[in-house]
Amino acid sequence: MAVGDVNLPSMWDVAGIKIGTTQAHIRYPNRRDLVIIEAAAGSSLAGVFTQNAFAAAPVIIAKRHLACTQYPDQPHYLIINTGNANAATGEVGLAAAQRTCEAVAQEAQVDHQQVLPFSTGVIGEQLPIENLIGGIKPALADLAADHWVDAAYGIMTTDTVPKGASIRFELDGQYYHMTGISKGAGMIRPNMATMLAFVATDAPLTPSLTQHLLKHSVERSFNRITIDGDTSTNDACLFIATGQGGGACIDLQDSRSSIVQTALDEVMQRLAELIVRDGEGATKFITVQVEGGATTEECCAVAYSIAESPLIKTALFASDPNWGRIIMAIGKARIKDLDPYTVHVWLGDVLICKNGGANPDYTENQGAAAMAQKEITIRVDLGRGQACDTVYTCDFSYDYVKINADYRS
Amino acid sequence: MAVGDVNLPSMWDVAGIKIGTTQAHIRYPNRRDLVIIEAAAGSSLAGVFTQNAFAAAPVIIAKRHLACTQYPDQPHYLIINTGNANAATGEVGLAAAQRTCEAVAQEAQVDHQQVLPFSTGVIGEQLPIENLIGGIKPALADLAADHWVDAAYGIMTTDTVPKGASIRFELDGQYYHMTGISKGAGMIRPNMATMLAFVATDAPLTPSLTQHLLKHSVERSFNRITIDGDTSTNDACLFIATGQGGGACIDLQDSRSSIVQTALDEVMQRLAELIVRDGEGATKFITVQVEGGATTEECCAVAYSIAESPLIKTALFASDPNWGRIIMAIGKARIKDLDPYTVHVWLGDVLICKNGGANPDYTENQGAAAMAQKEITIRVDLGRGQACDTVYTCDFSYDYVKINADYRS
Repeated sequence: MAVGDVNLPSMWDVAGIKIGTTQAHIRYPNRRDLVIIEAAAGSSLAGVFTQNAFAAAPVIIAKRHLACTQYPDQPHYLIINTGNANAATGEVGLAAAQRTCEAVAQEAQVDHQQVLPFSTGVIGEQLPIENLIGGIKPALADLAADHWVDAAYGIMTTDTVPKGASIRFELDGQYYHMTGISKGAGMIRPNMATMLAFVATDAPLTPSLTQHLLKHSVERSFNRITIDGDTSTNDACLFIATGQGGGACIDLQDSRSSIVQTALDEVMQRLAELIVRDGEGATKFITVQVEGGATTEECCAVAYSIAESPLIKTALFASDPNWGRIIMAIGKARIKDLDPYTVHVWLGDVLICKNGGANPDYTENQGAAAMAQKEITIRVDLGRGQACDTVYTCDFSYDYVKINADYRS
Repeated sequence: MAVGDVNLPSMWDVAGIKIGTTQAHIRYPNRRDLVIIEAAAGSSLAGVFTQNAFAAAPVIIAKRHLACTQYPDQPHYLIINTGNANAATGEVGLAAAQRTCEAVAQEAQVDHQQVLPFSTGVIGEQLPIENLIGGIKPALADLAADHWVDAAYGIMTTDTVPKGASIRFELDGQYYHMTGISKGAGMIRPNMATMLAFVATDAPLTPSLTQHLLKHSVERSFNRITIDGDTSTNDACLFIATGQGGGACIDLQDSRSSIVQTALDEVMQRLAELIVRDGEGATKFITVQVEGGATTEECCAVAYSIAESPLIKTALFASDPNWGRIIMAIGKARIKDLDPYTVHVWLGDVLICKNGGANPDYTENQGAAAMAQKEITIRVDLGRGQACDTVYTCDFSYDYVKINADYRS
């Protein structure tokens, strides 16, 4: 059960984007497990991908194709399957990802480098390539601008809810749209990238601005969440600017780019938050906010040390204000010359730890009330500077063990 | 329930060491929660301590006293309480640890710097100092050479079994003894130190050799285990050489020191292994062996990445040979320029992953049989060098969540 508000909003169409889905029977029957996204000719595409050394075959091919000379007069196609990650599959897996691109290219009459493949699911098994290829024609036949919701469902694996975000924003009196979807509930600790997420806008952005905006938003969204500290082999996040909303092209120097950045931040942060709210077995949504650091990096390190501590996550599950564990996690984050006596910790609004020790005014009842909430903010002040950073996570429940002991079996 | 053989062996007395225990009612009734260890005058003492920035008050005092000029004509006293960690307790906690040392010193008529305090239990609550001091006289009155077993029980917290190791070794025809105890079951990811462990020998070692041997053994024992990746604020490991077994003093240059190192390795590795076997909620004992690395450091990083992955630990609990998760954990360990195609992975004797992909000869039945064992070795060959390293861990079960959601409440 996802935590708090995870409703799918009304999803704006994005001019220049069409989506088709189908049942390709990759692993499970009776579910849409193949999604094709078409980005009209002239779109700018940007992507960030997993830093895992065992990057999956589709990640390798998608990066390669993104880096290639693109054909501006041709559309791009993203093809996404669930049920199989095509990771740790060696040369056979690479060939399968290639063949997928070629099959889409042939059907859509574009160069195969215009096709980017994405896979998510079990690692280490070969892709059932014939099933996948069999799904291409029906998925292409299904292409339509208003299929974002189908796509949000189509990329789910252990997700319990589809994840989407959509906004409209204004540049010089003209309205543009931005819509995105994401998936992921476990193996979540993106590193310079994300789980699968696809965001598109009809604003006219240059390719370099598209990449620049994506990189910055990722650092404030997907690269600030963790469910289990495990970095997937298949993380990928794509941002597409079709330009079909009209207007003059916006580049990196254009002051309007900051408005687009804000819009992208909002969409990406919501998509990242939705992944945490749907974390495997999650019963609580936790914000870990660290301030007063000498650098953002040390705030981030402390926040992750708290957010990934199994002892803290189980205490959150139990609503036990066992704040000694938070102190432990701050202390183990390897922050050079950290002075315990300048550290304060709040649970929600309750100051539990003052100057590195128990706040004399703190009562267990206050802590218990703060911990009983479904949404909890753990706030730490390191008391040694002006930097801050925030990481989002969830608690660690019986169901986390159950889900991951059962998955795949 | 601890995994496999965790029986307490016959514990050799160590000439020059006496132990007394008592019930001081620190937190729980009806249990021995205070232990005093007396090391005869002339003993060499060495210690390693937690690297957690929130090192507990007793850790700070014990380090300070160890570093002081010692009085060779006076015995040393270690005083250990369970039920309260005296961590994150500020100046009040430091004063309590000091007062504890002074009370022992007064009773035993030694300098207070001859006393080293150790605490373990809940973090963030003040030590019930009067109860603790009330226990000093009865504990001293209980001092005897054959109380190692009582001490093993006396330092337990969430441990389900007492932990001890004891051997006899020979140097130039003379027999010496080495006996040690340890505790710990959660918040276990020692960093340059360990949970509480106390080892003593009657061999005649110089202080510098004592420290040298301890440092080396710790790197091969307590610094190679993990239960939950969480580094305690109270980790401490003491090694005492009383010299009362007779013979000429052994220093760093003495070739006999390697025999003592081997003996210490054996005792410390057993004590570390016992902590893992008694890991909170553990149902399996896991050895993660990484070889073929360019450096020991990278083997260690890969081994810990596997040993601390919640997805792998839950799969081990479920006996699910979901080896894709092992691949994921190798890949996320941030090893520079790791070539997936040179990596092999074995579950027990079964080669599951060959050259970074599924071994074509592997069958799920083989994997399932390997995973059904109570003791499992995950072996990884990185295929890029001669270095190797090994880390020990346990699985992640419902009971882990239960124990840590209930503890303290």
